Amino acid sequence: MAEPLRIALAGLGTVGAGLVRLVETNGALIERRAGRPVRIAAVSARDRSKDRGVDLSPYIWEDDMTALSARADVDVVVELVGGADGPALTTARGALKAGKALVTANKAMIAHHGMELAELAEGQGVALKFEAAVAGGIPVIKGLREGAAANRIERVYGILNGTCNYILSTMETTGREFADVLAEAQALGYAESDPTFDVEGVDAAHKLAILAAIAFGARIDFPAVDIGGIGRVRAADIAQAAALGYRIRLLGIADCADGSLLAGGGLFQRVQPYLVPQHHPLAAVDGATNAVVAEGNFSGRLLFEGAGAGDGPTASAVAADIIDIARGDIGAPFSIPVAELEQREAADSGHRTSRAYLRFTVTDRPGVLAEIATAMRDGGVSIESLIQQGRPEEGGEVLVAMVTHEGPEANVAQALQLLEGSASLTEPPLVMRLLA
Amino acid sequence: MAEPLRIALAGLGTVGAGLVRLVETNGALIERRAGRPVRIAAVSARDRSKDRGVDLSPYIWEDDMTALSARADVDVVVELVGGADGPALTTARGALKAGKALVTANKAMIAHHGMELAELAEGQGVALKFEAAVAGGIPVIKGLREGAAANRIERVYGILNGTCNYILSTMETTGREFADVLAEAQALGYAESDPTFDVEGVDAAHKLAILAAIAFGARIDFPAVDIGGIGRVRAADIAQAAALGYRIRLLGIADCADGSLLAGGGLFQRVQPYLVPQHHPLAAVDGATNAVVAEGNFSGRLLFEGAGAGDGPTASAVAADIIDIARGDIGAPFSIPVAELEQREAADSGHRTSRAYLRFTVTDRPGVLAEIATAMRDGGVSIESLIQQGRPEEGGEVLVAMVTHEGPEANVAQALQLLEGSASLTEPPLVMRLLA
Repeated sequence: MAEPLRIALAGLGTVGAGLVRLVETNGALIERRAGRPVRIAAVSARDRSKDRGVDLSPYIWEDDMTALSARADVDVVVELVGGADGPALTTARGALKAGKALVTANKAMIAHHGMELAELAEGQGVALKFEAAVAGGIPVIKGLREGAAANRIERVYGILNGTCNYILSTMETTGREFADVLAEAQALGYAESDPTFDVEGVDAAHKLAILAAIAFGARIDFPAVDIGGIGRVRAADIAQAAALGYRIRLLGIADCADGSLLAGGGLFQRVQPYLVPQHHPLAAVDGATNAVVAEGNFSGRLLFEGAGAGDGPTASAVAADIIDIARGDIGAPFSIPVAELEQREAADSGHRTSRAYLRFTVTDRPGVLAEIATAMRDGGVSIESLIQQGRPEEGGEVLVAMVTHEGPEANVAQALQLLEGSASLTEPPLVMRLLA
Repeated sequence: MAEPLRIALAGLGTVGAGLVRLVETNGALIERRAGRPVRIAAVSARDRSKDRGVDLSPYIWEDDMTALSARADVDVVVELVGGADGPALTTARGALKAGKALVTANKAMIAHHGMELAELAEGQGVALKFEAAVAGGIPVIKGLREGAAANRIERVYGILNGTCNYILSTMETTGREFADVLAEAQALGYAESDPTFDVEGVDAAHKLAILAAIAFGARIDFPAVDIGGIGRVRAADIAQAAALGYRIRLLGIADCADGSLLAGGGLFQRVQPYLVPQHHPLAAVDGATNAVVAEGNFSGRLLFEGAGAGDGPTASAVAADIIDIARGDIGAPFSIPVAELEQREAADSGHRTSRAYLRFTVTDRPGVLAEIATAMRDGGVSIESLIQQGRPEEGGEVLVAMVTHEGPEANVAQALQLLEGSASLTEPPLVMRLLA
């Protein structure tokens, strides 16, 4: 049997401990499939004394995480610390500079520093892999980078945050409100105590920026993602969407204005709650499940679905990267070398057209509807259907929802600008596009 | 830029012509992603004069397919002739023996001769790849072989034949009968003029046998697949299933009695129409779409969905294999070397337990129900619910359907044996399991 591949683990949280368990449980079959044994050589984390439910005594312990990269008996450093910067980034840089391969599940770090790290890896001729950074256990990076490699990708989109999908699908089945379901999710451990990154769409945006770079051969441009969260979605919106034949899902969507890898079209990246038609496969994705769709010019629509988080699925994706490395795969991290990735401008979303769901929260008095309708007309927005919820809610609020015909997003923005400052609106309007 | 990878196409049917179109259309991006150009060097098919909608004049034409393998200017032979034996097999063997890599979309050939061809490829140190042989454009071989490589696969199953799925889902939405929908599908070109391989489950069984070998580290054992088709499913069965909360789908399912890669459990492989719970993702798969689920001990349930056939998607999968080869991937075709694959016995399905839907077509006379119920009791089959369709169909037939409690499949077989030759039954009972 060939030489073992020796890995070092930086970070021993749930995913790190899960990876230790996976390598112990499935070590024999990994050896058969990788063609060589995969061995944990050394580990490091902040607190040595913490009980992680796995026996760490067989492995060398380093108090100093950066020391892992200096070890001659380590081939691959696995960074599972988390956080865009700090010890995670120091460890990642150190590993690559020392000529070690790097495997990470860290979406924030890749979204912010992926270009620098990939350049480092390419310069050293070592692998940088991050399958677990996007959609947990689902092999979607591989699906895009290799499975769909022969295609011009026309669009990539999906459900990239399990917490949001859990909250939205629970709101849907129970009719409860956001804050209520979020609190329960936190109590159950499905949502972080600080859920900002999840519910405001930042986590999904990290993942989308990574997917978009691979799909479109572009440099990662996380700051250009148009990010919205789910905090303003109400049970009434979900009920309204259902009546219209839609389900509300937080989607990350990216495409290129000209759709080609080699021409210079703008890169469009958006994370927002969307109305997804009930017959679309993403509408059936409930709970913490993730799913990604890639539309290729020859493959047609490919869908990848599975667990988006959790120690087992995430460790499975990390280990798949390790096995790829054991098999000798050290291809370009972003499918094509960083130097060849294109710096794309952010697409101007004003020129995009869509159908939109608009929901206004208004005071219950005469003339409000006329005011809204006039603004729509003046903005050039054509209304397909209008739903007024007759019964005032708490505090005398009435919800007015409408679906527009397909039209420029700029027109909707203009119409809403005309309503800005109106005394009739009790909060800013909520805009959600319909997935086409 | 590195040396081009030079391919030769054997077979220029719809997929072959699709591949020519793909390489012409997406050549520039393939070069970027593969790190080197992919060039078609030579082509061969039976009839040179046929118009295939693509310009073949830039490529060397060989009248003799086997001559492709002898060409010094060819690195990869792409076999798209089809058929388990004959010219396809001759071409495949010739290519590998000549030290060329082989890419094929030929499920029948791999199901019947995959072990021999893989051994040849391994002996020569060249690649043998067949992503397009299973589930068309969906990268599911890659998903299992690489994406889920760190997992013990507990079960692999899915919708592997687009024609059957089109027929079943059309029967479902229209209420029409099998023969009627099949005839329409043939007229529309969705089904072959001889649909036997599709509707009798043989095509799905070829694909299942390939998936099972990779998932369970076993030698391909196509003859051991328990194969059934959809020809006996009636519109009434579909309506009945819907009333119970299920949809009928032709599934291929495989698992290992002990679930492990390394121990000696029996290999269970079955292609049969199943009742799929309406909330299961496979129930939502309509039309000619394919979908495969892999359940890993760490990844949990992974789903891969997309177009299962067609020139574009199939060419996309073939080209993905070619790009992998261009990148230097020549790993074992079945994930682990053929010599290490295990020869597994076929699992004895009698010991398996399931819930089953049984449908009897009976004459409309007293005592029939008692006769059936008695046979069930004597066979040890416990009935969960019984549905008798009151109104006799054409010819005085009445349909009696039931769902059993979970129990040994052997008991159902025994109960049905007790009814064999009964004058009350106008045709053999139809048995379909419920997907658990």
